[in-house]
Amino acid sequence: MTESHPRTGSDPTGLHRVLDDGPGGQRVLPQAARRLDTRRELWPDEVRVRVETLNLDAASFRQLEGKHTVDGRPDGAAVRREVLAIVAERGKMQNPVTGSGGMLIGTVEEVGPESSLGLEVGDHVATLVSLSLTPLMIEDGLERWDGLAERVPADGYAILFGRSIAARIPDDLAPALSLSVMDVCGAPALTHRVVAQYEQPVVAVIGGAGKSGSLSLAAAARAGAQRTVGVVPGDEEAALLRESGVADDVVVADARDPIALRDAVAATGALADITVVCVDVPGCEGGAILTTAERGTVIFFSMATSFSAAALGAEGLAADVTMLVGNGYAPGHAAYAMDLLRSNEGVRRLFERRL
Amino acid sequence: MTESHPRTGSDPTGLHRVLDDGPGGQRVLPQAARRLDTRRELWPDEVRVRVETLNLDAASFRQLEGKHTVDGRPDGAAVRREVLAIVAERGKMQNPVTGSGGMLIGTVEEVGPESSLGLEVGDHVATLVSLSLTPLMIEDGLERWDGLAERVPADGYAILFGRSIAARIPDDLAPALSLSVMDVCGAPALTHRVVAQYEQPVVAVIGGAGKSGSLSLAAAARAGAQRTVGVVPGDEEAALLRESGVADDVVVADARDPIALRDAVAATGALADITVVCVDVPGCEGGAILTTAERGTVIFFSMATSFSAAALGAEGLAADVTMLVGNGYAPGHAAYAMDLLRSNEGVRRLFERRL
Repeated sequence: MTESHPRTGSDPTGLHRVLDDGPGGQRVLPQAARRLDTRRELWPDEVRVRVETLNLDAASFRQLEGKHTVDGRPDGAAVRREVLAIVAERGKMQNPVTGSGGMLIGTVEEVGPESSLGLEVGDHVATLVSLSLTPLMIEDGLERWDGLAERVPADGYAILFGRSIAARIPDDLAPALSLSVMDVCGAPALTHRVVAQYEQPVVAVIGGAGKSGSLSLAAAARAGAQRTVGVVPGDEEAALLRESGVADDVVVADARDPIALRDAVAATGALADITVVCVDVPGCEGGAILTTAERGTVIFFSMATSFSAAALGAEGLAADVTMLVGNGYAPGHAAYAMDLLRSNEGVRRLFERRL
Repeated sequence: MTESHPRTGSDPTGLHRVLDDGPGGQRVLPQAARRLDTRRELWPDEVRVRVETLNLDAASFRQLEGKHTVDGRPDGAAVRREVLAIVAERGKMQNPVTGSGGMLIGTVEEVGPESSLGLEVGDHVATLVSLSLTPLMIEDGLERWDGLAERVPADGYAILFGRSIAARIPDDLAPALSLSVMDVCGAPALTHRVVAQYEQPVVAVIGGAGKSGSLSLAAAARAGAQRTVGVVPGDEEAALLRESGVADDVVVADARDPIALRDAVAATGALADITVVCVDVPGCEGGAILTTAERGTVIFFSMATSFSAAALGAEGLAADVTMLVGNGYAPGHAAYAMDLLRSNEGVRRLFERRL
């Protein structure tokens, strides 16, 4: 059953659902917008998804949890209230402090006649564009969520634009596992691309035992790294990462201590040609730069990265390194990450213990 | 005449001159330190510069002047006393409120035997790392400074670390012109490097009539751009840029309006393969991404860039673009920028009208 479509034209970027203007009165994209139009009716190139689960971005959830912690105990009800208030006000789940969102899983409910996403009604999908630009309506008050974890059971709907990304959830993997892979699938794709541009590089991944970190380590090995170094903050993660076999070397260092980080990586034999930052804590820019050899590349995937700290840090250290803003999109990124998981038992174990 | 060097090892970042520990007890880099060691004797990889002029950072001077204004009149003697007190206490000129420093001009006095900065005794140089991390001893009580301007005639010495940056001041250019080129010299160097990685790319520079913008346009042309597009916010700058001949095409667009920016650049014939963002206004990330063709590169030089807006913006637009954090340093960047200025009459005119 097709519903009537609005008459005015749509833009593949979703511009037609932006309700506000930027500071100067100019048109802004959905990600930069304060408010989105969540109307149920589709423009011809859109897709509507019935939401099943939201996965909040880690940096966003940590900020919300920290803000609502009293006497060392997080107040889940307060976190839930704030998420509901954000979505009600903004028409999307975008943390006003971190700017980040997350992703969602659901089932395709309606496909506009001009959609080019290749989806069909009934497809079980994960959206791979951020919640920070996805029109979202929550219809159950998040009553099944305790506010204490990033994974949010939810009922409601979300809208995908003409130029958007959603991937079918594979049948051979548990949905939660697929999702947690898709959530970070930009990192291994970009890591692979950068590693392939170097001749047998040494690759250090800060936060190597995490989701994007372990996939990035596996991608680096597949793309031809000479050696991979996984950096973790403590002995417990070090043991897990060693046991997984995903990294050639495992070192323990506080990524916020630039000299400690540099020295720990250098002690494995050499500085890194490529350093991949996958830990969502602020203050890792200087250490990542110092840990990277001249003409090397730092890829920042952490949403806690400060642009000015990276730019001024490299200048202050006279560091001739290329610094990349981790782009969460590359063609085929979801399938590539799934394939890494399926073919790498160690990565899979690291993922499964987090579910 | 070589002096005796301290026996303990030095670190190229200057860590050996940090006298305090950071908040968490971890070692901090000189920029984050409260106090630096200003001893005259050099570690083997250091350079000592006889100071001639300090140029206080504009934000820092404004704060000091405002603090010491009585009845609407700035008290220069009080400003001078405070600068002397800061330097005496911290061993560097770092404004405790703004955190910023500035730069200095002077003459190389001694070069450690293991210095790799390529400087010689007697060289007239500007330091391109911030005063906020440069050990500084003032020896004349700033008696020639009235405390009423950012430019501070001074006698004393400063220390450059193993890994630092200083550029010789050319004899053939006015010092003020040289300094304004050095201030932005990272942009053309990185633009050149990226353009050279593409086959005859189209290069768009947002803020093309500005200092870093005009140098980046000239660098793009020299590095083999097929065509350059200068984007400016208004007709006056458009006329100036056209008259300079520095860009092949000049278009007027508000860079904060993604669709307008994309359409303006596309109207010159094609989207850009490389987009260079040189305007210090927030909210240009989405437009820069949309203006860039698939597999293109965006270089962000603006300190107003939001990391998360760039990362999530590209993902949200399913844009397969490489995004670079503009690094203010590349080897030879100052000399390269000076050469562009000398050889490009249009760039020189754009600079001189700003002095």
